[in-house]
Amino acid sequence: MRPDVPSSVTVSGTTRLLAVLGDPVAQVRAPALLNPLFARLGHDAVLVPVHASPEDLPAVVRGLKRVRNLDGLLVTVPHKIAALRFADVVGATAAAVGSTNALRREADGRWRAENFDGSGFVAGLRAAGHDPEGRRAVLAGAGGAGSAVAAALLEAGVARLTVCDPDSARLRALCARLERYRPGRTAAAAPADLPGRGPLGDCDLAVNATPLGMRPDDPLPFPPQELPPGAVVADIVMKPEWTPLLTAAAGLGLTVHHGHHMLDHQLGFYCGFFGFGEVRDGGPAG
Amino acid sequence: MRPDVPSSVTVSGTTRLLAVLGDPVAQVRAPALLNPLFARLGHDAVLVPVHASPEDLPAVVRGLKRVRNLDGLLVTVPHKIAALRFADVVGATAAAVGSTNALRREADGRWRAENFDGSGFVAGLRAAGHDPEGRRAVLAGAGGAGSAVAAALLEAGVARLTVCDPDSARLRALCARLERYRPGRTAAAAPADLPGRGPLGDCDLAVNATPLGMRPDDPLPFPPQELPPGAVVADIVMKPEWTPLLTAAAGLGLTVHHGHHMLDHQLGFYCGFFGFGEVRDGGPAG
Repeated sequence: MRPDVPSSVTVSGTTRLLAVLGDPVAQVRAPALLNPLFARLGHDAVLVPVHASPEDLPAVVRGLKRVRNLDGLLVTVPHKIAALRFADVVGATAAAVGSTNALRREADGRWRAENFDGSGFVAGLRAAGHDPEGRRAVLAGAGGAGSAVAAALLEAGVARLTVCDPDSARLRALCARLERYRPGRTAAAAPADLPGRGPLGDCDLAVNATPLGMRPDDPLPFPPQELPPGAVVADIVMKPEWTPLLTAAAGLGLTVHHGHHMLDHQLGFYCGFFGFGEVRDGGPAG
Repeated sequence: MRPDVPSSVTVSGTTRLLAVLGDPVAQVRAPALLNPLFARLGHDAVLVPVHASPEDLPAVVRGLKRVRNLDGLLVTVPHKIAALRFADVVGATAAAVGSTNALRREADGRWRAENFDGSGFVAGLRAAGHDPEGRRAVLAGAGGAGSAVAAALLEAGVARLTVCDPDSARLRALCARLERYRPGRTAAAAPADLPGRGPLGDCDLAVNATPLGMRPDDPLPFPPQELPPGAVVADIVMKPEWTPLLTAAAGLGLTVHHGHHMLDHQLGFYCGFFGFGEVRDGGPAG
């Protein structure tokens, strides 16, 4: 795992603000990763964690948008879908995904929403040698992060994508969006359909994009023992680094891909989006 | 002047937030002074500048109060009076002064307002060897900071306090409050009354508590050449350190007292108020 370098930052009256919104927020790694990067790039800016509950989110965002030295917001669980409605302009990827993880104030005062989860996830997979092109993928989770990963996997050329989620309404809605985005490659599955002769048995990339694994007593998002040898099991949960899913997968001899790669490979995208440097390839900047 | 030590802080998802509200906010020194102090005291907290205009202040404060990892607010020009209305509980000094420069979230969720400007100012005067007791003082400015300085000077035992302000309504209101607080020692004066045979000629402590001096083309808040030899001229403007008033006063051979002392001597009070250490004597902590 990429070590969290000490995230020392110098804050003064001239410092520009960015906030990362979540509930909870204690687990977010973006401040520890981005603040030293801002400093190295010579930007007098600090990213702070902002803990807002779903019911408080509208008032919190309304207030933050009026803070004149606040230039942008990062958004994490569970606000990625809800935060879209605070944007005046929605970028193409965020629109396709139906959620946002980054909003910035434009020069004209309007707020633009984008989503770099999927491109960060795919950039991380590629950097680890797991190019998704041509793979048969199973994705657990049709929420904000799952939608982003799904769209990026299709864009990266997976041969087939099976998405499962216990919330059948949001699963159907995502699959309908994905069908319009890249037709003919997506299927929906209920979690109970995955084992046995289901899509897990004939899959070479299985991704958890649910929050399952953040808490020690969470059930596994899917049964890794159903996967064939050689499959890659990827998790987007960052803390703990070794989720029960990845621990079980490694114990079965499967290849694992940790959650931190998705964020690590978004840092360059974030810096570009917030005007703090070149977009480059989205790989770990600095 | 007390040097601004590098204010490196480490920000992560668990970091607690404090915000200093001002308009403008670029000049605030509290983040540079308090963040290293929090770090030395072992508190995972960061104080960030928040630029809010008067018309945006209600929405900004409403939003910040709902941020669950935000524990308190510092308040500077021009919000010290307006911010009082966001408190559920008003401390004794803030009530007497009619303004607040510090609000915190109590354990029961209510917000308490206090004001440490006056006690910080008087602690700074005493530390510099200018005990206000028995002095005849002139104070320019009946706004938030002026009110705090006025109440603290009376509490510290000045023999006589003449307050001047071009806004005669707020001048009368302050003098009425001060009359109730410490009867018989306060007089009001219009700025035009100060020169000639006015109170400046018979004064041994003259204080600027207006924002005049923050901009290079500001007029002087009062004419220092009217003061007798030996008078102390104190400014609460912190940037520039040498305001036109203090430069002129020093050129006349008068004793000057810089603006930063008021904040320096509040740091201990702030730390105590926010639960980050002992109140001690309010002197520069750390």
